[in-house]
Amino acid sequence: MTLRRHGASPGADAPNAGTPEHDAASGRNAAPDHDAAIDALAIETIRFLAADAVEKAKSGHPGMPMGMADCAYLLWTRFLRWQPNDPSWPGRDRFVLSAGHGSMLLYSLLHLSGYDLPLEELQRFRRLGSRTPGHPEHGLTAGVETTTGPLGQGFGNGVGLALAANMLAARFHEGDFTPFRQRIYGIVSDGDLMEGVSSEAASLAGHWSLGNLIYLYDDNHISIEGDTALAFTEDVAARFEAYGWHTERTDAYDHAGFMRAMNRALGEVGRPSLIVCRSHIGYGAPHKQDTAAAHGEPLGAEELAAAKRARGWPESPAFLIPDEVRERFAARAAAIRPEYDAWQRSVAAWRAASSEHDSRWRALIERERPADLFARLVKAAPAGAAATRAHGGKALQSAAAMMPSLVGGSADLEPSTKTWIQNSEAIARGQFAGRNFHFGVREHGMGAILNGLALGGFIPYGASFLIFTDYARPAIRLSALMKQQVVWVFTHDSVFLGEDGPTHQPIEHLTALRAIPNLLVVRPADGLETAAAWAIALERRDGPTLLVLGRQTLPAIERDPTFDSSLIARGGYVLREARGSDVPSEPKGAALTLIATGSEVAFALDAAARLEAGGTPARVVSMPAPQRFLSQDAKYRDAVLPPGGARVSIEAGATDYWHRIVGERGLAIGIDRFGESAPLAQLQEHFGFTPEKIAARIDAWLGTRR
Amino acid sequence: MTLRRHGASPGADAPNAGTPEHDAASGRNAAPDHDAAIDALAIETIRFLAADAVEKAKSGHPGMPMGMADCAYLLWTRFLRWQPNDPSWPGRDRFVLSAGHGSMLLYSLLHLSGYDLPLEELQRFRRLGSRTPGHPEHGLTAGVETTTGPLGQGFGNGVGLALAANMLAARFHEGDFTPFRQRIYGIVSDGDLMEGVSSEAASLAGHWSLGNLIYLYDDNHISIEGDTALAFTEDVAARFEAYGWHTERTDAYDHAGFMRAMNRALGEVGRPSLIVCRSHIGYGAPHKQDTAAAHGEPLGAEELAAAKRARGWPESPAFLIPDEVRERFAARAAAIRPEYDAWQRSVAAWRAASSEHDSRWRALIERERPADLFARLVKAAPAGAAATRAHGGKALQSAAAMMPSLVGGSADLEPSTKTWIQNSEAIARGQFAGRNFHFGVREHGMGAILNGLALGGFIPYGASFLIFTDYARPAIRLSALMKQQVVWVFTHDSVFLGEDGPTHQPIEHLTALRAIPNLLVVRPADGLETAAAWAIALERRDGPTLLVLGRQTLPAIERDPTFDSSLIARGGYVLREARGSDVPSEPKGAALTLIATGSEVAFALDAAARLEAGGTPARVVSMPAPQRFLSQDAKYRDAVLPPGGARVSIEAGATDYWHRIVGERGLAIGIDRFGESAPLAQLQEHFGFTPEKIAARIDAWLGTRR
Repeated sequence: MTLRRHGASPGADAPNAGTPEHDAASGRNAAPDHDAAIDALAIETIRFLAADAVEKAKSGHPGMPMGMADCAYLLWTRFLRWQPNDPSWPGRDRFVLSAGHGSMLLYSLLHLSGYDLPLEELQRFRRLGSRTPGHPEHGLTAGVETTTGPLGQGFGNGVGLALAANMLAARFHEGDFTPFRQRIYGIVSDGDLMEGVSSEAASLAGHWSLGNLIYLYDDNHISIEGDTALAFTEDVAARFEAYGWHTERTDAYDHAGFMRAMNRALGEVGRPSLIVCRSHIGYGAPHKQDTAAAHGEPLGAEELAAAKRARGWPESPAFLIPDEVRERFAARAAAIRPEYDAWQRSVAAWRAASSEHDSRWRALIERERPADLFARLVKAAPAGAAATRAHGGKALQSAAAMMPSLVGGSADLEPSTKTWIQNSEAIARGQFAGRNFHFGVREHGMGAILNGLALGGFIPYGASFLIFTDYARPAIRLSALMKQQVVWVFTHDSVFLGEDGPTHQPIEHLTALRAIPNLLVVRPADGLETAAAWAIALERRDGPTLLVLGRQTLPAIERDPTFDSSLIARGGYVLREARGSDVPSEPKGAALTLIATGSEVAFALDAAARLEAGGTPARVVSMPAPQRFLSQDAKYRDAVLPPGGARVSIEAGATDYWHRIVGERGLAIGIDRFGESAPLAQLQEHFGFTPEKIAARIDAWLGTRR
Repeated sequence: MTLRRHGASPGADAPNAGTPEHDAASGRNAAPDHDAAIDALAIETIRFLAADAVEKAKSGHPGMPMGMADCAYLLWTRFLRWQPNDPSWPGRDRFVLSAGHGSMLLYSLLHLSGYDLPLEELQRFRRLGSRTPGHPEHGLTAGVETTTGPLGQGFGNGVGLALAANMLAARFHEGDFTPFRQRIYGIVSDGDLMEGVSSEAASLAGHWSLGNLIYLYDDNHISIEGDTALAFTEDVAARFEAYGWHTERTDAYDHAGFMRAMNRALGEVGRPSLIVCRSHIGYGAPHKQDTAAAHGEPLGAEELAAAKRARGWPESPAFLIPDEVRERFAARAAAIRPEYDAWQRSVAAWRAASSEHDSRWRALIERERPADLFARLVKAAPAGAAATRAHGGKALQSAAAMMPSLVGGSADLEPSTKTWIQNSEAIARGQFAGRNFHFGVREHGMGAILNGLALGGFIPYGASFLIFTDYARPAIRLSALMKQQVVWVFTHDSVFLGEDGPTHQPIEHLTALRAIPNLLVVRPADGLETAAAWAIALERRDGPTLLVLGRQTLPAIERDPTFDSSLIARGGYVLREARGSDVPSEPKGAALTLIATGSEVAFALDAAARLEAGGTPARVVSMPAPQRFLSQDAKYRDAVLPPGGARVSIEAGATDYWHRIVGERGLAIGIDRFGESAPLAQLQEHFGFTPEKIAARIDAWLGTRR
């Protein structure tokens, strides 16, 4: 097809834009006019690939890709460093589409760039089993750096990715060996910037002076309900400057202006940058541009055809890609190839130079873990009477010693959550060698940043009180959906945190968290189980683990010296056999089983002893991870919970979850109302969580069953 | 005791501070020096009441009250308009302690002001059953305007209260009748300002130009992990100016400076104000001031004694209150009394002047509802095949016509949630007569603002997609804890929203929401149930109701003309009796019961017909509100779900909740994994949610039971 020139084009300075490494990568010697014409062609290709795919799917968001095609194309071909044949190249730049509803923009770019995303996949946009779902999904589609759609999350993920790059640099760079100079780019929308999670993450990005982070703000003035002026009249750039960001403004279609803004942002290495790109949603659609109608539904055949005509684009075929455009992207990949090859050679040489180098690489980049990690952690398990948060703090030290990629922090509660990695510093502006973070009172921002750290190569953990999982749930859910190895550590896990009262006392939270698919919740009962919980979390590479720890001191649990600690990893196990004359011989313990988690296990043991003293033998099952237990084979489950036996669950929280385990005729002892502000002992009496009261309640219940 | 003078005192201009109504209320003629001495005495009283109570409780937060005693005292006695004998006076100013951990500051002020909070209650701080819990609880303690502690929430509540005041003014003020001139004051901490929810609410407060909102920022530079500089280096004042706020700075102990800042803020009626008060946590404690140690634990006897010595305060007795201080507060109450009396007279006269006035007052201020509200709403129920979100939009119109206090909006999803009150405008800067809000993409800020609107006198609703309950959970929970009548409306309630994919498809959300105490979750199946759901929400005055509505079109459910709609309010009811030759005569339908909610009810009906065609009679129970059903008496429950019968639940989400209802031997059909991006029909096939597949699965399961 013939080259045609559309819209504005980069100025004469554009081809020479970028920092030296970007210049080297561009490697194009064509005449500026020819270049600009191909640029224009490529931009229309992206614009209409997106619009065509949405049209074919009869569903989707054409407006954002159409509006941001220019900026995204220039970013992708002038700045972003990528290699389609190695989407997980650790040295690549990252592109985060925080405005995930514009997924077709990303899919178009990935396809044109030669990633493993054939045109047929674009034509199957939003179809079952395609690699082009409605919102981009990391792990499903090569080149998708993070799963986005819930607004603000990608923004925070990018902060984590930028942090990870700096932290890897601090761990590896020496002399000429500088493999982690990647920048993190992203496109964020007004919705991203309205969400509080991005405020939290932005404040931290400014605090840490993350100069390797550059976001383009798709300032299109349109949200779903209409003009953003209906609800969003703040001065966004001034707000980001207050966070410590560098800001730029440009017209999204003034290519020269955009290149200048980008170059100034690249030159600003001491601060993250926000480039406010004044854009037009549905750019080019004659009737729907600048309207909410362009946001979340197909343009319609007529408007799409009119848009193509207005942009000088053939009305058919759909999904048209000129050869020159493919060549342009191929040229970009080829231009980066020498840098990529040099990177690989440099890393190989560095690793070969020293076994310490190689093991550091394996530990940090490949997240290698010792084969005997579980055994070593339980061997080093803290003993004695203590709160599980205190046990957790000790187990963390052992875990951190074994796993250099483990890094984390707390949302301003470290003295309470006990989650400081000793012998290591805090991350701070210009200081990225440490392993500890001060996240401030920002659970949600912390969560989104943890997800970014995981995507950036680390095993991150984040801590707060269990009640505040509510503040971070969208990020917790995304860690599960993305199958990221994030360790969530939440302490103060029941009303028994005491005097802080119902605003701080979790009730429904264990039920609410266990219901999240692929999130493993572990609530250990003592030092051994806490160490095992950390081991479970570190061995679970395909998803997040949430550790639930208590504030109050618990007694040490006495165990048989022959106890097999690996049973803890099965989620539930027989901690104490029923004793007494009338225990049925087969299956053992079928008469009565008490099932407890965390701080209630000690009560269950005590209650069992009391029940037996009254003539009722009782088995005690500790079940730190009921989800894991339910995934065991039936033989194991039946051995732990003999079918037909009477079952009682004991957990200081909502009982909703336990009915499936105790059965319709079982007894679920819990707390299905809000808590109270009072000292621990008063609360235990008040809520009936003393061994005496538990035993009495079970006794009474058994009476009704007989 | 002898008057002593401590610290700085208000300048000569202080007694004349405030707007005219505040001047009139102050009514003091004493000499400035004497005044300042009593001020100083009162401030030390507040400071040490707080420190003493924390010391006695052996738990709590002394640092914030000690640091902010000066500002709080001046606010309370020079500006805030209150009457201790009528804590719910609609014309009162509101004080929001967003930094709820400083509860003893508020309790001290309430006690000194003569609210129903005896000194004994302060001495029972954080004890079981006291009215002085660890964090302030609205409804428990007179004068506590909102429950705070989870940071950022109070900030958002205050925005809602400020909005409510403006909205009441717009509904009532005419000529000289201006009963709703109240201002909303608050104290916010660094933690409040780090949380994203306050960013969202602050942006909206600036957008709406809420000039009646004034927050004092306790800028003490200390958070739990240490200096705020560890994690919070943004320019807070600049950030708030970017949101459209007026800002001031003052030393927290420079009384004259504080008064000047307050007066400038009061003069700024076009913008909300943030007064940055540079304070010192634990002010006066010689070793712990300006340290994190002063934040969340008692000073210790020695440090407390040293602090008292340093401030010239008697070391004993504890809980010392000089008479002059009581008199000062009593004088303030007396000074406001004439205004209070005039307010009551004015309102009474206005109400008496016209029956329209009186009915407007009863409808809006007393939230009066028609006795036959339920019957009228179900009579007007939308009929036919439609999505429940569409039914909801229609039912909302009927509800709004009956309940003028019903106001609400959506987090930028109104075209999808269908939650616009027709024939009414949007709330906007300077325009508060409307009933609709544009909240922007800010679910959490919306939630905190809704809670404030409820506290301010309205019945607010807020809408988004069900997945985004995750973004608003802390606010949803607080509406339940505070027993506020907030209506949460969430649509797109299952994977069957379709192509948007797993990032937008709720799975665990119904389970997670039903576990929140005092939150009633209702998922209706058709127009009639949707209308009833709205009626349930409007009749439920002591807690929030969460309506769960679907995106996809559902068939109309055919009902017997004799159907008693009031059964819907029981949470679950027999929608279709089992038919067929082998149905046991007693109890009816015991053989097999299908229990479904929302969009799955139609499938259950179809599946039941298929099962019966195959010879298996099946009853269908529609259970829009299982929590409500479980609270019915056993007779009703057993009549609906005959004991011993086989039960199958059908709900397109996590099955966790249903085991308690179907029993250990029952079958819970649901979706316990993340969703997929695909069109509705493909998803229904994929997840087995077609009548054919459901019937076949039940048939197979019955086979295994036989």
